[in-house]
Amino acid sequence: MQAVAFQAPYEVALVDKPEPELQAPDDAIVRITATGVCGSDLHIFHGRVAIEPGFTIGHEYVGEVVAAGDAVTGVSVGDRVLGTFQVACGTCWFCRRSQYHKCDSGRTFGHGKTLGSLQGTQAELALVPHANLTLRKVPDGVAEDVALFAGDVMGTAYHATQFVRPGDSVAVLGLGPVGLSAVQTAFIAGAANVIAIDSVEARLDVARQFGATPVHLTEQNPRDEVRALTGGRGVDVAVEAVGDPRALESAIRLAAKTGVVSVVGVYAERCEVHMGLVWIKSLEMQTGQANVIGHLDSVLALLEAGRLDPSPLVTHHMALADAPEAYALYDKREALKIVLTP
Amino acid sequence: MQAVAFQAPYEVALVDKPEPELQAPDDAIVRITATGVCGSDLHIFHGRVAIEPGFTIGHEYVGEVVAAGDAVTGVSVGDRVLGTFQVACGTCWFCRRSQYHKCDSGRTFGHGKTLGSLQGTQAELALVPHANLTLRKVPDGVAEDVALFAGDVMGTAYHATQFVRPGDSVAVLGLGPVGLSAVQTAFIAGAANVIAIDSVEARLDVARQFGATPVHLTEQNPRDEVRALTGGRGVDVAVEAVGDPRALESAIRLAAKTGVVSVVGVYAERCEVHMGLVWIKSLEMQTGQANVIGHLDSVLALLEAGRLDPSPLVTHHMALADAPEAYALYDKREALKIVLTP
Amino acid sequence: MQAVAFQAPYEVALVDKPEPELQAPDDAIVRITATGVCGSDLHIFHGRVAIEPGFTIGHEYVGEVVAAGDAVTGVSVGDRVLGTFQVACGTCWFCRRSQYHKCDSGRTFGHGKTLGSLQGTQAELALVPHANLTLRKVPDGVAEDVALFAGDVMGTAYHATQFVRPGDSVAVLGLGPVGLSAVQTAFIAGAANVIAIDSVEARLDVARQFGATPVHLTEQNPRDEVRALTGGRGVDVAVEAVGDPRALESAIRLAAKTGVVSVVGVYAERCEVHMGLVWIKSLEMQTGQANVIGHLDSVLALLEAGRLDPSPLVTHHMALADAPEAYALYDKREALKIVLTP
Amino acid sequence: MQAVAFQAPYEVALVDKPEPELQAPDDAIVRITATGVCGSDLHIFHGRVAIEPGFTIGHEYVGEVVAAGDAVTGVSVGDRVLGTFQVACGTCWFCRRSQYHKCDSGRTFGHGKTLGSLQGTQAELALVPHANLTLRKVPDGVAEDVALFAGDVMGTAYHATQFVRPGDSVAVLGLGPVGLSAVQTAFIAGAANVIAIDSVEARLDVARQFGATPVHLTEQNPRDEVRALTGGRGVDVAVEAVGDPRALESAIRLAAKTGVVSVVGVYAERCEVHMGLVWIKSLEMQTGQANVIGHLDSVLALLEAGRLDPSPLVTHHMALADAPEAYALYDKREALKIVLTP
Repeated sequence: MQAVAFQAPYEVALVDKPEPELQAPDDAIVRITATGVCGSDLHIFHGRVAIEPGFTIGHEYVGEVVAAGDAVTGVSVGDRVLGTFQVACGTCWFCRRSQYHKCDSGRTFGHGKTLGSLQGTQAELALVPHANLTLRKVPDGVAEDVALFAGDVMGTAYHATQFVRPGDSVAVLGLGPVGLSAVQTAFIAGAANVIAIDSVEARLDVARQFGATPVHLTEQNPRDEVRALTGGRGVDVAVEAVGDPRALESAIRLAAKTGVVSVVGVYAERCEVHMGLVWIKSLEMQTGQANVIGHLDSVLALLEAGRLDPSPLVTHHMALADAPEAYALYDKREALKIVLTP
Repeated sequence: MQAVAFQAPYEVALVDKPEPELQAPDDAIVRITATGVCGSDLHIFHGRVAIEPGFTIGHEYVGEVVAAGDAVTGVSVGDRVLGTFQVACGTCWFCRRSQYHKCDSGRTFGHGKTLGSLQGTQAELALVPHANLTLRKVPDGVAEDVALFAGDVMGTAYHATQFVRPGDSVAVLGLGPVGLSAVQTAFIAGAANVIAIDSVEARLDVARQFGATPVHLTEQNPRDEVRALTGGRGVDVAVEAVGDPRALESAIRLAAKTGVVSVVGVYAERCEVHMGLVWIKSLEMQTGQANVIGHLDSVLALLEAGRLDPSPLVTHHMALADAPEAYALYDKREALKIVLTP
Repeated sequence: MQAVAFQAPYEVALVDKPEPELQAPDDAIVRITATGVCGSDLHIFHGRVAIEPGFTIGHEYVGEVVAAGDAVTGVSVGDRVLGTFQVACGTCWFCRRSQYHKCDSGRTFGHGKTLGSLQGTQAELALVPHANLTLRKVPDGVAEDVALFAGDVMGTAYHATQFVRPGDSVAVLGLGPVGLSAVQTAFIAGAANVIAIDSVEARLDVARQFGATPVHLTEQNPRDEVRALTGGRGVDVAVEAVGDPRALESAIRLAAKTGVVSVVGVYAERCEVHMGLVWIKSLEMQTGQANVIGHLDSVLALLEAGRLDPSPLVTHHMALADAPEAYALYDKREALKIVLTP
Repeated sequence: MQAVAFQAPYEVALVDKPEPELQAPDDAIVRITATGVCGSDLHIFHGRVAIEPGFTIGHEYVGEVVAAGDAVTGVSVGDRVLGTFQVACGTCWFCRRSQYHKCDSGRTFGHGKTLGSLQGTQAELALVPHANLTLRKVPDGVAEDVALFAGDVMGTAYHATQFVRPGDSVAVLGLGPVGLSAVQTAFIAGAANVIAIDSVEARLDVARQFGATPVHLTEQNPRDEVRALTGGRGVDVAVEAVGDPRALESAIRLAAKTGVVSVVGVYAERCEVHMGLVWIKSLEMQTGQANVIGHLDSVLALLEAGRLDPSPLVTHHMALADAPEAYALYDKREALKIVLTP
């Protein structure tokens, strides 16, 4: 089969690989019909996330079950399915508490041996362990471009805004696919107002289209805008969807006293944080990767009902074979979401 | 001043009364510009809730502050304000936990000595104790007919659906003003689906207009409809907005295992409950009057943002002097919300 | 092997049965070293819970793993283990949310085909499905009589008091093993005071020994005692550990406004409930069987640390062969917990 | 009257001041019978917290009401009372949500104009605004040395451990009065184990006496001890009771994945935080000053029941006139809690 494999920084290639085979009773094999290119793929592309040359990348996918082990009960061969970017064992201490994102033996598709040596989904076929927890049938009437978001981007947005309560004000800093999806999930969670902050006009336009108040990071003063919309108080929840200490400080400044700063942007190192401000405001910080498996049923219900609709985020459809061009394009930030079709 | 006073069952009258005067430093006096007729007024009208003849009734209101004690800091003379149906002291054990609806010295407008001897708001002027907690400025751009709902009906709906989480399915049983508002607040809280149940076509039409799936109580089978929409599981939250043991049993039956039955419909006596079903499903029952003061800031933010809009529920505007006709009309169930204007 | 089998109402017998064999990859077989007699066994003994004659009963157990399928990773052959009274699949909608007690394919040991046809644990050997979720190693230093409580009685008590917050006052109605364990878990959860109510002096004595204020149901007035201990307010949490409408009404009366009534006593039918009182007090009712699998890690940590210690509840040790005498004794309410040893 | 006034860094003096007088209807005047010296007083003593020379310091107190305004309903002249270190208005947006610690017009005793110009309690008399929220009667049988902790140290400890759930493991970093009290509140909240970390033997001894596992910061390896006690997982809640970036990093390292880092130690500036570790572990950080007014009823119930007992922390009793010696002694870290008696 054909698969997109990392070769070296700034170089991916379509390669031939043997087809995957079932290994455990709760494995499934999925024939991929659509697979997305994600910001974390770009970290691999840039060489910032180490991965073995030749490893298949990609972790967003929709497809059809073509084989399933004896213990797979949730889906059947022939089912049109979507899956999560990460798999979890279902029985460790963390899984027993539904904290699937921190499973003691969790594995992430397409991230090499660092994250469990699970070959990626930018391929014709993918082996999916623990299929009962990870796969779901695509509900009737849900388009592939919509279903593709359930197992990563929209689940992450749902996670980012899970502390929003009806009537809250919310700021979203960084309007990539996760930030823009978080505008939608913030409204779903009851936000009265969502202030969406970025410096790219096209992204601000999408945020406006999703109902947010767009604020240009440098041409406007986010603090003034937030004050005007919140009676001077600041926002109840500030979502940091960038992964940059400046965005974090901005989130801390925009939050109201006793507010929540929700950090879904990725951090990998030490950095300076204004703990004095965090402390004096009695802020709560929620951090880390999303519990996408834990949120999957809820996200899927909202996608099926049409209350969440990420389809405007899909800017490009390309063939799997065009993956090298897709990565180059995405690297230039000219796309929001590229969907590859094997 | 003129005021609507209870006379005897099925008889209310416009009477002359002395103007109220400030009594405590945190009192305010409000000139009423709009006041609603509510289902609980009807209980008084029917004589089911005992009240002294001559007592002014009514508890939904919007108006203008015409006098305020020294300790009133939240609003000023001249402000256009809305108020809650109930007042709370702010310092008792319950108020200290923000459980204002169960304040040890809470008083309700227009319910006679049983609920604190606080003259009602269907009058030209009303004395408002504990004004700092109870009154809020009407935000710019919020219509009187909208603001009128913040302090009772919409706050009750918000309370009824406070356990809804994004992605949940919800059933609302009983589509009076509270039930119909609960359709709105359920969606605001993230419901993927709302099943709205009643036997009055006009009310089902409003529910449909608010995005719900309307189900006729007798012409359709609510359980089949719920099963179809929830994959056979039942709803995550069932709102009982009637106050009738049959509605309660229906809510219990429609709820999924581990679901919530939210009882905002009024109960006053013992009744038969299918505890066997409640227990085997491990249901949670949330009951009682709404914490309208506690929810007021959130409800107001959502009304101001236009995310909640109860204005379609206002079916009639009448003069305060026409209160006798208004009650007769409301008693015939020909109106959803009647607004009286002094 | 030998096993205790239901024969007819008021008749159990030690019978010979074939040894169980592994059927699924996540099955284990446990050689039972201790198994308890529980109040729900008594329901079967009385014929109130229907079960097939010849079915092995019992569901509380400690033992040693003697066989384990390929997918069993949490425990190994030779491990000293405890298990829960109920097993869960780990992957259905409810299990995915850690609501293991309402698993769509949950099965209970020793309850016949009604609860999943899972042979009981009052036997020399037991087949344990879904062993990864259900079995845990007995921590070093934890006695068999203590470990035996983790998978049923103490998990149920933990569940019953899960809404207790530090500083709360708690009433426990009914001082069987679950009620007495709930006295312990209420204190662990932070209760400032626990009022323990029953009419059996010996049980009141144990409650006193556990730190509670014992109140005799008929010789004292529980409401006066509760009022005295709570400044007239009532308790924050009232645990109904009987399963009787009179106990439920008592719990409702003892609860403070906005309090929680936690119903772990079993209900199977309709009954009269004072919904008027429930409603006017804005009570929350939590009901149903305990999520013992969900609480297992926490309960075990507390047993291991010695913070929970149910060993005073074990009043009798008997041989498995003496099960008929044990049931007769338990039926006379002369024992709190009988432990049978194969 | 006599009062302890700040003069200059490292210099406090007993001075004569006019007696306070009632100013608002909800003011009370309290004759101080005991007042503590706190770590935050030391910040003032050191000149790190700016305050006007001549300002009365101190904020922990017990006393007797000698005058009360008309609106004071919770306590009466002659009552033996305790108060909180901070006062709150009761009606602003934050107070309406019971977030009294972030009251928009909150004031702290003895901290000069920065925190509301409220003269301190290390004096013969103190003016107490908003007495209904801030003062409580000392329950019968509660000693002065115990009551003194309710309004600051023990309320802060309660706050620090409010996310502990029964069965959790907890680490407390820094064993001053707040850290040692947090050992007690962690157990009250249900901790199975508390690991208490400091480098002062005497403090480790008190922690051991309170039931914790003491770990010497430099002579032992806290991470090894935590791993041994938590099956390698780390603690569910790590309390940072120091206010130092090294303690914060330690807390982050000791916490389990998805754990809570509770920061009650004071931060005033930017500092380096290992956000990479925070993020990869998906930690939750809770920060800031304690909501002592919000916790007061619960803390008091636990003190009255004897479940919390901070009296071992009182190492010194001295006369108010000896305040200069007391501050010098406290500055040498030779005392845990010094109680001054006017």
